[in-house]
Amino acid sequence: MLTRLSAAEVERVVRMALAEDAPWGDVTSEALVPAEARASARLVAREAGVLSGAEVFVAAMELTDAALVVRFAVQDGARFEAGDVLATVDGPARGLLTAERVGLNFVQRMSGIATLTARYVAAVAGTSARIVDTRKTTPGLRLFERYAVRCGGGFNHRFSLSDAVMAKDNHLAMLGDVTAALKAMRARLSHTTHVEVEVDRLDQIEAVLAAGVDTIMLDNFSLADLRAGVQQVAGRALVEASGGVALERVAEIAAAGVDVISVGALTHSVRALDLGLDFL
Amino acid sequence: MLTRLSAAEVERVVRMALAEDAPWGDVTSEALVPAEARASARLVAREAGVLSGAEVFVAAMELTDAALVVRFAVQDGARFEAGDVLATVDGPARGLLTAERVGLNFVQRMSGIATLTARYVAAVAGTSARIVDTRKTTPGLRLFERYAVRCGGGFNHRFSLSDAVMAKDNHLAMLGDVTAALKAMRARLSHTTHVEVEVDRLDQIEAVLAAGVDTIMLDNFSLADLRAGVQQVAGRALVEASGGVALERVAEIAAAGVDVISVGALTHSVRALDLGLDFL
Amino acid sequence: MLTRLSAAEVERVVRMALAEDAPWGDVTSEALVPAEARASARLVAREAGVLSGAEVFVAAMELTDAALVVRFAVQDGARFEAGDVLATVDGPARGLLTAERVGLNFVQRMSGIATLTARYVAAVAGTSARIVDTRKTTPGLRLFERYAVRCGGGFNHRFSLSDAVMAKDNHLAMLGDVTAALKAMRARLSHTTHVEVEVDRLDQIEAVLAAGVDTIMLDNFSLADLRAGVQQVAGRALVEASGGVALERVAEIAAAGVDVISVGALTHSVRALDLGLDFL
Amino acid sequence: MLTRLSAAEVERVVRMALAEDAPWGDVTSEALVPAEARASARLVAREAGVLSGAEVFVAAMELTDAALVVRFAVQDGARFEAGDVLATVDGPARGLLTAERVGLNFVQRMSGIATLTARYVAAVAGTSARIVDTRKTTPGLRLFERYAVRCGGGFNHRFSLSDAVMAKDNHLAMLGDVTAALKAMRARLSHTTHVEVEVDRLDQIEAVLAAGVDTIMLDNFSLADLRAGVQQVAGRALVEASGGVALERVAEIAAAGVDVISVGALTHSVRALDLGLDFL
Amino acid sequence: MLTRLSAAEVERVVRMALAEDAPWGDVTSEALVPAEARASARLVAREAGVLSGAEVFVAAMELTDAALVVRFAVQDGARFEAGDVLATVDGPARGLLTAERVGLNFVQRMSGIATLTARYVAAVAGTSARIVDTRKTTPGLRLFERYAVRCGGGFNHRFSLSDAVMAKDNHLAMLGDVTAALKAMRARLSHTTHVEVEVDRLDQIEAVLAAGVDTIMLDNFSLADLRAGVQQVAGRALVEASGGVALERVAEIAAAGVDVISVGALTHSVRALDLGLDFL
Amino acid sequence: MLTRLSAAEVERVVRMALAEDAPWGDVTSEALVPAEARASARLVAREAGVLSGAEVFVAAMELTDAALVVRFAVQDGARFEAGDVLATVDGPARGLLTAERVGLNFVQRMSGIATLTARYVAAVAGTSARIVDTRKTTPGLRLFERYAVRCGGGFNHRFSLSDAVMAKDNHLAMLGDVTAALKAMRARLSHTTHVEVEVDRLDQIEAVLAAGVDTIMLDNFSLADLRAGVQQVAGRALVEASGGVALERVAEIAAAGVDVISVGALTHSVRALDLGLDFL
Repeated sequence: MLTRLSAAEVERVVRMALAEDAPWGDVTSEALVPAEARASARLVAREAGVLSGAEVFVAAMELTDAALVVRFAVQDGARFEAGDVLATVDGPARGLLTAERVGLNFVQRMSGIATLTARYVAAVAGTSARIVDTRKTTPGLRLFERYAVRCGGGFNHRFSLSDAVMAKDNHLAMLGDVTAALKAMRARLSHTTHVEVEVDRLDQIEAVLAAGVDTIMLDNFSLADLRAGVQQVAGRALVEASGGVALERVAEIAAAGVDVISVGALTHSVRALDLGLDFL
Repeated sequence: MLTRLSAAEVERVVRMALAEDAPWGDVTSEALVPAEARASARLVAREAGVLSGAEVFVAAMELTDAALVVRFAVQDGARFEAGDVLATVDGPARGLLTAERVGLNFVQRMSGIATLTARYVAAVAGTSARIVDTRKTTPGLRLFERYAVRCGGGFNHRFSLSDAVMAKDNHLAMLGDVTAALKAMRARLSHTTHVEVEVDRLDQIEAVLAAGVDTIMLDNFSLADLRAGVQQVAGRALVEASGGVALERVAEIAAAGVDVISVGALTHSVRALDLGLDFL
Repeated sequence: MLTRLSAAEVERVVRMALAEDAPWGDVTSEALVPAEARASARLVAREAGVLSGAEVFVAAMELTDAALVVRFAVQDGARFEAGDVLATVDGPARGLLTAERVGLNFVQRMSGIATLTARYVAAVAGTSARIVDTRKTTPGLRLFERYAVRCGGGFNHRFSLSDAVMAKDNHLAMLGDVTAALKAMRARLSHTTHVEVEVDRLDQIEAVLAAGVDTIMLDNFSLADLRAGVQQVAGRALVEASGGVALERVAEIAAAGVDVISVGALTHSVRALDLGLDFL
Repeated sequence: MLTRLSAAEVERVVRMALAEDAPWGDVTSEALVPAEARASARLVAREAGVLSGAEVFVAAMELTDAALVVRFAVQDGARFEAGDVLATVDGPARGLLTAERVGLNFVQRMSGIATLTARYVAAVAGTSARIVDTRKTTPGLRLFERYAVRCGGGFNHRFSLSDAVMAKDNHLAMLGDVTAALKAMRARLSHTTHVEVEVDRLDQIEAVLAAGVDTIMLDNFSLADLRAGVQQVAGRALVEASGGVALERVAEIAAAGVDVISVGALTHSVRALDLGLDFL
Repeated sequence: MLTRLSAAEVERVVRMALAEDAPWGDVTSEALVPAEARASARLVAREAGVLSGAEVFVAAMELTDAALVVRFAVQDGARFEAGDVLATVDGPARGLLTAERVGLNFVQRMSGIATLTARYVAAVAGTSARIVDTRKTTPGLRLFERYAVRCGGGFNHRFSLSDAVMAKDNHLAMLGDVTAALKAMRARLSHTTHVEVEVDRLDQIEAVLAAGVDTIMLDNFSLADLRAGVQQVAGRALVEASGGVALERVAEIAAAGVDVISVGALTHSVRALDLGLDFL
Repeated sequence: MLTRLSAAEVERVVRMALAEDAPWGDVTSEALVPAEARASARLVAREAGVLSGAEVFVAAMELTDAALVVRFAVQDGARFEAGDVLATVDGPARGLLTAERVGLNFVQRMSGIATLTARYVAAVAGTSARIVDTRKTTPGLRLFERYAVRCGGGFNHRFSLSDAVMAKDNHLAMLGDVTAALKAMRARLSHTTHVEVEVDRLDQIEAVLAAGVDTIMLDNFSLADLRAGVQQVAGRALVEASGGVALERVAEIAAAGVDVISVGALTHSVRALDLGLDFL
């Protein structure tokens, strides 16, 4: 699997989440549960899915109490069925109860993203299209959500506004001669900067290609237009399809011959996967 | 509306989000759009909903470029229809293009939460039940998501593990004499700490009430059991219903006479509301 | 003992204090003491008291030099006499000399608070009143000072403005119909929010109780009025006495039958307990 | 007055204190006080003293609500009597009520330090001795507390372990030939580093002076020994008296001819001055 | 000029530098210069060069004292001669004296980088080669130093290890079939990730090109080999020359026909340009 | 060696540098190098010099991957020749490749400073002058650069504007009676604050000495004037020479009898020493 979460970033974000959830302690566990009580629990899938966030869950436990021991039976990216035991946790009961919600909040959301991504990826199997994410991520959690997309078999688009160009309709609308403007832009950029340009109509394609772009995005195209666009580009650039890509439609979009399909829904509307912590 | 977002917290989180989305600038706008270009845009609803996050959207714009002027036509908590113009933005084109995605990421998610909350609230109208959120919030955004719940007419549950007791099944399972343990716990707590205890069965209620709790939570009860539970409690504590509360079922749960209905789905599975920024 | 200091918070605050006290090293120890020199010291009580801050003292040593070994002979909350050895420290001499002042600054102040609290608690022994702290804490150290109050046998009041209501004279002065306003407020609050209201005169009690508050605070009442107030409230709410509670007066205030006595002096005017580090 | 508090540091610390005191809002004011309500209040001295912390109090107000206007009638360092109005605050009632406690916590403590310092300074008036603080400050607030000492007419000792040498008994006990060791140390130090050495007995003075130190500290000396020490040093170094300097004894210590008297009590045992905010 | 420094980042770094240089005030100015004294100064070039860092210098002044007014006569990227007045500063004397060193430290280093870059750029004028920087930047100042390179007319290479691939000799040495490994890598990467591969010998070129890379770097090639390499690549990828590129050699390297010349010396060995602040 | 780098500060700065260089992972190593691959490398000197930054290099490796093992053959402050192996690194190949650049960036710069300092120190050997640094350091790295100066046998000047007085020409120009002003200043300062005053001409010396300063700085004096100045001061204060001190001139400046020679070039124009990491 490509590029892991950095341990430093996991620690930073999990510490923040733990502090948010228990700014001055867990009054219930501390007032009700003896300090020496121990507990064991199992992380159980209540529905099928794809795992993402194992090390984040581990961090939530270990940063709450270093004596908690977590053992994952499966790895990030693995598929599981309802009823599967994904991990076990053993150790001080107070810590386990304190860390439970934060651990679940991460692994449920990340696995929700991985699971939805895997559905999109399965739908385009056998085509040359890849499923990619967008910048419609939760503020503060982009690294985690992009990782979850990779766990589901998807790919990442550019990380941010800084590391690649994406010229959209609103940019183009401000330009006079599009070809000249894009060429001038390229001359100002680092030679490592990928240039992608969005078009809304077939008749915009030639002017963009004439500037020598790396990827052309066909935004909200009909299937017929997508196919025509792919033919017109004819390998002169990568072709990305974008715009309200529903799961039911993604197979036919891929069949149109595009290289990349970006899906905002992977991250902008996350449904937490139903995973639970069952105490033994 | 109860308790606003603190301006300091909004600034802190929006700055973090802007840095995440443009760690070393917006190469597209800076390479393609003249520094002196100006633009105007309208924040338009593409579906009906309830607004939340106006000041966060404003902060995303103003912290990107202090020359951007945002005017909201409606306030947080207001309902709108598809096609309504919610706000206008005017100012430097570069800044507007740079801030667009971060601003939308916040207001779409927060309005998604407010809109879903408002549906739950409408469903229980005329009963004495209130809809409340849970701790199943996005790590790092709890303040924002709880505020969005309030914008939708809902109420907040405890903020964190620190400010109220919620003794759950896993806690109770570790105790011997539940009544005695809960009494002993209360004697250790601040007199300002609310004590809520979760029960899974009707026959657990008396032992809990005997300890003098403030709220009793009936977890995953059938409607019949909820009604029986409310009768049994008979005003000796507040009654909260919890556990997989679907929108279709919430009216009958409320009709069972409970005081509080907690709904994890308000925040654990957010669908971003479809709001767009249309450039003029 | 209820709710410990979080290890993460202790580490954060102690690191800050160490950096404040040695922003670019300890020039004396490094220029004068050989790197390989070792030392042993004893933390000795020069007056009697109650210990608080053992783990903070340990953190000051260990975060300065992980090779320093601290062994406490007594635990937080324990009483000791002048001359008692509370702990021993062994390890690199430079680190011990560098950490000494920061370690003492914490444990002396926290033990000062615990010791004063214990005096108040002893004074009300045999009554049903509990001694609680206030928000008159040192900026940045509230968690530590509230913990010290618990070490002394006291209880905590609300942690902050966020987690419970305390309506004071200045709030009430802005209201018209106090009962109606308090009722309206309660309807807006989370069901977990404790509501306490301060009154200055006996004739204010009924209007407040009519709104259904959890605690009524009798501020700066004479003993006679306190007794009258307790009788008037008659169990309809908890009763808190507040306002310049001197140690000499606290027993008779408790004897008036109040449930809670809040003492700002526990934290607003801390006298550091005289503890010293004697090198062997 | 020498060296002000840096505005950046004041803002940083006050923001921290405000966040500590209202992590997710002031539920009382927001639920009870109309957003548009305005209020005026006066900061009134309930006892005589010396002011310190005016700008910190202002920051607490302005950082809570920029619409709050604070006008101080006196400046830091000024003496006032019980009953004097030190400042007025006008603006939004919610903000004023929210900021009140944090503002008072700072100004009461800082004025407490300034007032106590002024008593020590007055006691040594007419002598050549100056009153200085120590490193026995509250963790995190050293800059504020040293400033308060200056407001009271005192002087600061070294700021930290980094900016000057103070060789104490525990250091000297590890050395063989004290004179040689101190000379070797000086040869390793920056030429700007002040060297102060503590002695416990008169017979240690010559060995220390032979090394060429800047200040010699006579620790816990009797008055007779202090006088003898001053005579023996005879201007070859500054002389500092230290060790449990009670207010009643400071005049005779000063009369012994020392240059510097360090008083840990100025900051290690702060009594908050009684200042109150009276709403009009 | 491409991509400016973000104002938020400038503020963050300059505040850090000011705190580093005056952690508890500027004792000289505060003890010696009256608070009301005003001063004027001119930023004067003592040698010819290219300006970079104007807004950083402004920030150093304004964040020290908002009353300081800085007016730059030239903009970043402009050339100037020895003796030219680059800017004037007017305002409170204390603030000006306090901020002087930090402001100079930034603008001298950044202008040093811009000036050296401009020499390299001038040396390759008339060729199709561009001068680019490397990751050999000062820890913590990469954004500033890359901006300075752009001010001098240079271009930036990838920003970090995250935003583009650079497979070096040490990577290749771990691979078996280089072509297959590089192809497999590309299949795992985002479609926006630029792939650059370093080769040490001419006979490695074909295997790399066969994998379809974007840029091939010829590391430490002789001029003859560079020319041979450019011919061999024949437009199938961009060609970068790298490795100890001295200013005297850069023209002939460019003449070899490469597209990109990376120069570590632009940032790894910065000579501060001699700019001074002359008080009037 | 005097005062080490604090481990906490090293960790903080190295973490920052690692995050700057790999904000979301090292795409090359992760996409190209198997997770289980191991590697060994040697840190080799490509030119002679003095080592500084060993523990910083170690931190770069260990904070990237705790499984990396670094063994240094020499210690900070040691001289080495071209070809010498300074250290070995063994462990996971990915981590080693990821950390390489950051580790080198630190150790090359710090050793560059130490090496240049050692040249200056050697040049004044046999005189009583010491070589000291200035505040012309890289923003954010002052602690590291001052440490490197010490590794090269140099000494540090004051750390910052806060810990010693340096009254320069611009300060003096604002004063009327210099002697009186300096005396008044000293009366306001802590008794531990070193006072240094800069003069531009011989005729300024007496007025400054009359105020009782600790060090007098002769700025940009000719050799003849330096000698005259030293004679005139005649031991009444330390004498510092300053101003464009070139390596070729430093011996004769030292021979003039000054105590301290400050050299801005030690840190304002750092040439990275040529150290490389050779993979085995």
